[in-house]
Amino acid sequence: MNALPRTSREVRLLTRPEGLPEPGHFEVAEVPLPEPGPGEVLVRNRYFSVAALLRSLISGEPQGSPMPPLRPGDTLYGAAVGEVVTAPDAPGLSPGALVSHWSGWREYAAVPIDQCRPLEDVLPDPAHHLSQGAIAYAALTSTVELCPGDTVFVSGGAGSIGSMAARIARLLGAGRVIGSTGSPDKAALLVTELGYDAAVVRGAGPIAEQLAKAAPDGIDVLFDNVGGEQLRAAVAAARTGARFALVGALSGQLSPDGRGDTAPVELDTLQLILKQITMRGFSGFGRPDAEAQWTRRFADWLRSGEITFPHVRVAGLERAPRALTDVIAGRYVGTVIVEL
Amino acid sequence: MNALPRTSREVRLLTRPEGLPEPGHFEVAEVPLPEPGPGEVLVRNRYFSVAALLRSLISGEPQGSPMPPLRPGDTLYGAAVGEVVTAPDAPGLSPGALVSHWSGWREYAAVPIDQCRPLEDVLPDPAHHLSQGAIAYAALTSTVELCPGDTVFVSGGAGSIGSMAARIARLLGAGRVIGSTGSPDKAALLVTELGYDAAVVRGAGPIAEQLAKAAPDGIDVLFDNVGGEQLRAAVAAARTGARFALVGALSGQLSPDGRGDTAPVELDTLQLILKQITMRGFSGFGRPDAEAQWTRRFADWLRSGEITFPHVRVAGLERAPRALTDVIAGRYVGTVIVEL
Repeated sequence: MNALPRTSREVRLLTRPEGLPEPGHFEVAEVPLPEPGPGEVLVRNRYFSVAALLRSLISGEPQGSPMPPLRPGDTLYGAAVGEVVTAPDAPGLSPGALVSHWSGWREYAAVPIDQCRPLEDVLPDPAHHLSQGAIAYAALTSTVELCPGDTVFVSGGAGSIGSMAARIARLLGAGRVIGSTGSPDKAALLVTELGYDAAVVRGAGPIAEQLAKAAPDGIDVLFDNVGGEQLRAAVAAARTGARFALVGALSGQLSPDGRGDTAPVELDTLQLILKQITMRGFSGFGRPDAEAQWTRRFADWLRSGEITFPHVRVAGLERAPRALTDVIAGRYVGTVIVEL
Repeated sequence: MNALPRTSREVRLLTRPEGLPEPGHFEVAEVPLPEPGPGEVLVRNRYFSVAALLRSLISGEPQGSPMPPLRPGDTLYGAAVGEVVTAPDAPGLSPGALVSHWSGWREYAAVPIDQCRPLEDVLPDPAHHLSQGAIAYAALTSTVELCPGDTVFVSGGAGSIGSMAARIARLLGAGRVIGSTGSPDKAALLVTELGYDAAVVRGAGPIAEQLAKAAPDGIDVLFDNVGGEQLRAAVAAARTGARFALVGALSGQLSPDGRGDTAPVELDTLQLILKQITMRGFSGFGRPDAEAQWTRRFADWLRSGEITFPHVRVAGLERAPRALTDVIAGRYVGTVIVEL
């Protein structure tokens, strides 16, 4: 093993943005190398992902969220993959072992053992462990129980979860797959790059009308990353017995303050009853079994060439704040990964 | 069999009410005895139930409803139990056989064979076939999969469906059962007569606050007959993994025009996700298997004295219009049945 440095760099929130965050709202700070306390593992991070969800955590303090708020001075956090440096209290974690955890946005992290998940060495590239495929797979299989031939609408279709959901839905036998996104450019990518049959565009006229054209026979399944108008449109387009997985509520972040602590939507209960719609809130937290099952399936599909992992790599911690503001502004397709 | 009369009486809509209907909006008309056409059964009605749902059908024309609208001049309709008079095309239906169908509000009805359901003679009284227990039973067992110990909130707890749902929930092992209703008097009846542990009252302060007091540990199941504020309150009170059966949307009828063709509610998608709530629209239409299963179970529970059928009987067709306006005004508890 190389000699350890004496310092580590990390990205901190400097001030709370009023509107959209800019790189100037963050700083890259140099700190002493973390010393793992009792029950902690020292990890050298190799990759971490940049999640749009951070916007609500840096803009406010969402009620009831399982994610701790971020206040000025705090180091950002998010999903990361790294190598164990030392794990004195976890003999199973040898130096060099690959683990995932939630202390991204820093070069070195002291992570409690129970928050460190050893990774099976089955994917072609450790960065693939940062795909959101496990969430998409669990929601499509257990939450909406996708059936062959289903017409599926993925809101937020270009995002890190949505882009995987579309591919997985297809592999599970979906018929037509329609995605929504925020610009005509991205809508074109949905069809040419991400395997969607059709796309609807936020801001290009009522989503309900666009969806009625894209799915003239209605939809069987909604995979919802957005809420708001998109969820209403899905109710309008739903066939009898449609199943909706509510996975994300990005619409809550589209408010001017971006706090995202609520994602209000006006629904018509009568339509939910008459169409016998099932809506189920899905939380990706605490599903290690689903994660392990997904990883094996993902490895098989990658090997057979049936799936790819739509993602973008950004090199170097100092580029991470700009990557975050670009993700929040919707400038990317797929998962954005910072490589250290 | 007695000689048949030459005429039959029926209740018709005279004019569309602007606000709440009054008896003067209806008339009792005398018409020639219906002659069953090919494939029809002539039925002498003995009982029919009076449903608050009629308000939306006489006030407007709900979009997407499987129930045909009612226009001035039309005969009202609703669930009925009667005896077969003649069934030339259905040899299985002997004269005198008990059947249920949807052509209530008249003394004699010519009913298509496929809309005539023969009734098992297992209940102590034919009027018991007009209970809404089948809907409550199916929604509690298959839609929300009630578990022993669940805390259950029944909105519209005094109504024909709600009053049965509370009893059935208890028999299926529910822990605490809370109901909502429209007046303090009815709230008292919920607890003393209908077996609820606690009641919340529409109009007596925010439902969410009342529900938080009635169910301090939150609710596991919502059996929703109302929608609107009550559904919002249930989301606020929901425990992680709560299941909601959306069965009715009476809140839509509380609008001044009473059309009830929408039942809008503002929900917070983020709360549905964080609490992993499942909401499922339940339609009672087209579930003959569930109906048969329910009838046997109901008979057993009635025999053992574990259940009763909360209902009120009104004698004579001429009293039916007043019964309907009283039902719509919320003056009854349980199912209201007109006896002919």
